[in-house]
Amino acid sequence: MNRVISLTNVRKVIHYHSRMSHTLPRTVQAAVMTGPHQPIVIQEFPMPELPVGGILLKTMMSEVCGTDIHIHHGRLSGVTYPIIPGHVSCGVIAAIRGNQPINDIHDRPFKEGDIVTFLDVAETCYSCYYCSVVKQITRCPHRKVYGVTYSCNNGGLFGGWSQYIQLVPGTKLLRLPDNLDPVSYCGGGCGLNTAIHSVDRADIQLGDNVAVLGVGPVGQSVVAFARLSGAARVLAIDSESDRLEFARQMGATHTFNLRENSHHEENERIKEINKLSDSGYGFDVCIECAGNPTAVRDSLLYARDGGRVVITGQYTDVGSIEINPHQLINKKHIQVRGCWGSDFSHFYRALELQSKYHTQYPWKRMIGKTFQLSEINEAMKAVAERSLVKAAIAPNGTDWF
Amino acid sequence: MNRVISLTNVRKVIHYHSRMSHTLPRTVQAAVMTGPHQPIVIQEFPMPELPVGGILLKTMMSEVCGTDIHIHHGRLSGVTYPIIPGHVSCGVIAAIRGNQPINDIHDRPFKEGDIVTFLDVAETCYSCYYCSVVKQITRCPHRKVYGVTYSCNNGGLFGGWSQYIQLVPGTKLLRLPDNLDPVSYCGGGCGLNTAIHSVDRADIQLGDNVAVLGVGPVGQSVVAFARLSGAARVLAIDSESDRLEFARQMGATHTFNLRENSHHEENERIKEINKLSDSGYGFDVCIECAGNPTAVRDSLLYARDGGRVVITGQYTDVGSIEINPHQLINKKHIQVRGCWGSDFSHFYRALELQSKYHTQYPWKRMIGKTFQLSEINEAMKAVAERSLVKAAIAPNGTDWF
Amino acid sequence: MNRVISLTNVRKVIHYHSRMSHTLPRTVQAAVMTGPHQPIVIQEFPMPELPVGGILLKTMMSEVCGTDIHIHHGRLSGVTYPIIPGHVSCGVIAAIRGNQPINDIHDRPFKEGDIVTFLDVAETCYSCYYCSVVKQITRCPHRKVYGVTYSCNNGGLFGGWSQYIQLVPGTKLLRLPDNLDPVSYCGGGCGLNTAIHSVDRADIQLGDNVAVLGVGPVGQSVVAFARLSGAARVLAIDSESDRLEFARQMGATHTFNLRENSHHEENERIKEINKLSDSGYGFDVCIECAGNPTAVRDSLLYARDGGRVVITGQYTDVGSIEINPHQLINKKHIQVRGCWGSDFSHFYRALELQSKYHTQYPWKRMIGKTFQLSEINEAMKAVAERSLVKAAIAPNGTDWF
Amino acid sequence: MNRVISLTNVRKVIHYHSRMSHTLPRTVQAAVMTGPHQPIVIQEFPMPELPVGGILLKTMMSEVCGTDIHIHHGRLSGVTYPIIPGHVSCGVIAAIRGNQPINDIHDRPFKEGDIVTFLDVAETCYSCYYCSVVKQITRCPHRKVYGVTYSCNNGGLFGGWSQYIQLVPGTKLLRLPDNLDPVSYCGGGCGLNTAIHSVDRADIQLGDNVAVLGVGPVGQSVVAFARLSGAARVLAIDSESDRLEFARQMGATHTFNLRENSHHEENERIKEINKLSDSGYGFDVCIECAGNPTAVRDSLLYARDGGRVVITGQYTDVGSIEINPHQLINKKHIQVRGCWGSDFSHFYRALELQSKYHTQYPWKRMIGKTFQLSEINEAMKAVAERSLVKAAIAPNGTDWF
Repeated sequence: MNRVISLTNVRKVIHYHSRMSHTLPRTVQAAVMTGPHQPIVIQEFPMPELPVGGILLKTMMSEVCGTDIHIHHGRLSGVTYPIIPGHVSCGVIAAIRGNQPINDIHDRPFKEGDIVTFLDVAETCYSCYYCSVVKQITRCPHRKVYGVTYSCNNGGLFGGWSQYIQLVPGTKLLRLPDNLDPVSYCGGGCGLNTAIHSVDRADIQLGDNVAVLGVGPVGQSVVAFARLSGAARVLAIDSESDRLEFARQMGATHTFNLRENSHHEENERIKEINKLSDSGYGFDVCIECAGNPTAVRDSLLYARDGGRVVITGQYTDVGSIEINPHQLINKKHIQVRGCWGSDFSHFYRALELQSKYHTQYPWKRMIGKTFQLSEINEAMKAVAERSLVKAAIAPNGTDWF
Repeated sequence: MNRVISLTNVRKVIHYHSRMSHTLPRTVQAAVMTGPHQPIVIQEFPMPELPVGGILLKTMMSEVCGTDIHIHHGRLSGVTYPIIPGHVSCGVIAAIRGNQPINDIHDRPFKEGDIVTFLDVAETCYSCYYCSVVKQITRCPHRKVYGVTYSCNNGGLFGGWSQYIQLVPGTKLLRLPDNLDPVSYCGGGCGLNTAIHSVDRADIQLGDNVAVLGVGPVGQSVVAFARLSGAARVLAIDSESDRLEFARQMGATHTFNLRENSHHEENERIKEINKLSDSGYGFDVCIECAGNPTAVRDSLLYARDGGRVVITGQYTDVGSIEINPHQLINKKHIQVRGCWGSDFSHFYRALELQSKYHTQYPWKRMIGKTFQLSEINEAMKAVAERSLVKAAIAPNGTDWF
Repeated sequence: MNRVISLTNVRKVIHYHSRMSHTLPRTVQAAVMTGPHQPIVIQEFPMPELPVGGILLKTMMSEVCGTDIHIHHGRLSGVTYPIIPGHVSCGVIAAIRGNQPINDIHDRPFKEGDIVTFLDVAETCYSCYYCSVVKQITRCPHRKVYGVTYSCNNGGLFGGWSQYIQLVPGTKLLRLPDNLDPVSYCGGGCGLNTAIHSVDRADIQLGDNVAVLGVGPVGQSVVAFARLSGAARVLAIDSESDRLEFARQMGATHTFNLRENSHHEENERIKEINKLSDSGYGFDVCIECAGNPTAVRDSLLYARDGGRVVITGQYTDVGSIEINPHQLINKKHIQVRGCWGSDFSHFYRALELQSKYHTQYPWKRMIGKTFQLSEINEAMKAVAERSLVKAAIAPNGTDWF
Repeated sequence: MNRVISLTNVRKVIHYHSRMSHTLPRTVQAAVMTGPHQPIVIQEFPMPELPVGGILLKTMMSEVCGTDIHIHHGRLSGVTYPIIPGHVSCGVIAAIRGNQPINDIHDRPFKEGDIVTFLDVAETCYSCYYCSVVKQITRCPHRKVYGVTYSCNNGGLFGGWSQYIQLVPGTKLLRLPDNLDPVSYCGGGCGLNTAIHSVDRADIQLGDNVAVLGVGPVGQSVVAFARLSGAARVLAIDSESDRLEFARQMGATHTFNLRENSHHEENERIKEINKLSDSGYGFDVCIECAGNPTAVRDSLLYARDGGRVVITGQYTDVGSIEINPHQLINKKHIQVRGCWGSDFSHFYRALELQSKYHTQYPWKRMIGKTFQLSEINEAMKAVAERSLVKAAIAPNGTDWF
């Protein structure tokens, strides 16, 4: 399992695929989440008929991440159960419907056999108020997310935990870089796009001190991207020592273990953390990736006056937090920036960066294990229990060559 | 009282002053606030001796504003009782100590007889971490504020409620524009600097919809400056109908009376307010000038997704507020910006703008009445009870010519 | 001619239209520019068949502007002669092809009888490198412009100098506000979008001093928008006194006539112009709308150190200019920003602003005269000779009710 | 020479110094540049008397850089010959005049024996229009530069090519970090401050492609800082292969040798360079550090549409360049930003960064050789002839311990 799959010899795959594409199976196996807290079941779907402009991928690998746990526990709003989960995936183009070429960003057409990945967000309209007037396209009400807000009720294969993935016309694809294997790619996964968006929102200046609150999958990539963006110090804050250790590999210069320091009073803790900044006054930037409301207040406490705080981890509703706006916002002259979703620019840049830096930062190691489709409930259990950070699903096996 | 004082005939004043300057009195009357909740008393001080670079003003007029009430009620931290209050004032230069010229921003020397005003913040160090590294000079720990953090224990006349004001070397002065009378100037007062800083932080784009929460003295100037900055709509929100009416004169295109709409459920109220934006989705910018923590949450509720929220009103500690960071920050992809203090650039620009637009926006009308020094407790009472928005003190009378 | 057309009584138009729409004519009259310097000819086209998603407008009015002169003189690159010119127009929806509703930005469907206008730029792809990675959508290579880069060779009615205009699927429409008559709308015309884009690029701060170099149609709207954006001073610079006079109506606080001051040496002229700024050091912002390369250097000369210069007027190639980068860019610590094209956000905001401020700023007066289709060559001659600033064409007459 | 000087054992130096400070010599040797093209002469000065707040340093090391060559050739305006050159230096505090403590940015007093460096710019006024209104403090007309605009006519030792350096009150000092030796420090030198300012102006985003035109001392540091700021590609462009080779050590991922490619036509060269960007469309950011006007136009040519161009190298007047504003600014929708000088924030951050990264980026190697004071003309000759990139002067020898 989890072995390194070299993609430099792409021709083999294409060859493999060429044989395959003429013999598209009549039925497709996929994992279906029927509702919150229900066991995930493997179902057989008829091979779907594509609309003009649609694309069919033969799945190589798909990510199992914390978002899937949230979905399974009913904590994410807008999920259209039953769904085929798997929002970040890669695969081989098995079919393209229609005569119009479907081009990449450089107007080069995609073709069958290409190994690709795709932005999990589709159907951004580019026409509504949010898309076209105020240019907050991550708030487009027409956006849909593969593996999350596409139901499989009508037989659509709109998630990666399936042998084949069906892409709606207009889905944005990228070729998987030759030097990037599927495990590394899924190791970054959806968190990579969120991380680059967060780091963009943080406006990190060369030499800044950055604190990352919570180093789960998103936080780990934030650590790496903050470091690459010129942060002279990156402090990872978490309660779990193995995460903090891994954060060091991802570029953290300092770590702070909340559990080991839980005997401190709040004031004491703040002082300890402020001391970890170069200036001693607190961090220029705090990026909250923890997913509990307390971390929002803590971010404000750890930032220096005039600093920037990015709120990334609160993408499910985990409740409220009491904040003293005089002490934490007004008098500190602080900036707080919420970060929601990501768009193609994040996806493109994240892939470019991962391709360049994945030998330096071990994204791959975030995938604890690659599972078969039939093992999906074990995979979910492992991620839910945090015995693995993330898992990968290979619905067609990993014996691709 | 409150009569219009034309300054176009400055020579008269200089003449008046010339006679005066040769006869500096031996003693000075000033109003002293000895501590929170204590009656303000008139004391007689010996005329202070200036250090080299020091300046003495003969006071024309000084503002009595909400900050003075906060100070009197002990709600502002850092106040060094006993103090001579009065942070915004104008006067005539009665003496300059030393041979070095003290220049304005264009290297033209100030001289005795000039009618000037001064930035209430002095002793910004330009050398500390906040001043020189991260350039948040409003957070300089060495800053002092006339009328607030200068004690009169040692006889220093560092506030405007005094016949003479003593300026420490380095205090930043501006000539009062010829067309701006002292009442108009005090009508804008300290709120003007705060307002322009808030509006700067808001990055108002041409055509934006702006909601101003709370239209006390700061909020009224925020309304005017937001309008001047290109806001196509400015909604004033308050509980008092006379304030809302005045906000219309200050440029508000719409108003919302919280008291009259108090029968609404919160959701209902938000809907009503969102409807008042051009798009119906909420306001591009919300500027909180209300001074109660609830208004902080409300600002987040009234802003459109991706909007900007400036927190200005929380400059005293009036408690905490519960916020749901998922609903109000993360998912809305919002920006919150605290606004603390102001610096010379705000002071300079505010004065330029007031000089240009004071006939259009009736700042003068914010001064309900001009009082004599001996009437200071009545003045405070009227402002505290809100029977006047602000008051002015004329320690040498208003019969200047 | 040029009479005020009230649109408040929209029902009349709809009624008129309802009768009309059932009797779409078989042929359409349109003005065709066959190539540079050729006389424009009226041709009869068969009524085109719309593709699914296509829209047909019955033209109310279309603009004749300086760009049309440039096109006619062969000075604009990329023009696909023969064309039906007219890039900014308004009309009544006469037909919508297909069952899918075509929605506005608030998801409300357009319907036959609606009086609309449309963004002259279509087919922005939202998928290429420029659209989706670096988000410079005005540089999308797939963009096309009505009246400029759509040929009429195959019978397409893609310009406003035609009784009917054919809109390709995806064209972005806006309803013409009820209070805005077609003449005012065309008076702003394409220059309005360019102007708001330029003013956005200029980042005008409240109280800034702005110089506008060249007050042709774009410059006049820049003057108005700069004023609305908070500029305390707007200096209009031009060689023609009537333009400068009109600029005063559009909000200029000061004017400088280059012809009347042509006896000055360059240094003298710069000094004179710098004196017109509040500070005397030059302008915070210069916006070049003159369209000759000398104005680019002049913009750099008139800006204060650290100022911003927006280059808008160089949208055709009118040659080079010698610049001393030490004196004008490096040592002045200046920012120069090119401004190319506009997108839907500019179009939307410009229309909102025009609707709100057209009674204050007389855009309407930029349309010297409304012509019939058959008079197109006279209209062009008048604009080319500058006897009119702009003209309007009403291909179906103006007797709409 | 040029041996590594460990500063970890600071106590030795202090000890050394303690002995020294009690025996301040009566006279000081210093190198004096009497005018352009004159041989530099060693003169003996009486030990100066300090004003209150003044500081005397015993010089450890001072930089000899390209700016000194410009000064010697009379190409820099504002130089107040005769001068003691040497604008970037470090030394030991030998004396502090007065009882007021002189504090660092954290309010910790400097004391005799401290090994320090200082910002070469002094007397920034913080009060003029540029300092206090528009906050362009590098354009303050009162600024003076050690080694450049302080004359030694009256015996002032205001440059580093002297055994002792006299600092005017208010000069901004920083302690030399323990792990940073004087050679490394001077290797970065003044170019380091300029480089960080340039990179700040460039707003480098994570993953950007950056071209650096000219890799002299400033360009080399720009390469390093661009890389540290998140540039995924850094292309160094120069005519000298050894500079390009060194640029690789400083972090360049790609190089382009103009001399080796001089057979190309301009169009050909642009194409070749654009190909070196990830996208193939040109560079997101170009930073001109070449110091000839042609490089300004080239920067515009190599930038992608919508890109940013920083002009840093034109700090002396080396003539004009013809630019087509339509092709290079307007249509490309480009931003050009001049970069002048630097301030304390750049100095502070540069030193922090150098202290952290000097083992990774070999700034030290830019100092080809350390000279004695008496060898100053050889040092200048070597730098002028480019046989060394930079040199260092150790006026008290390097045998400090």
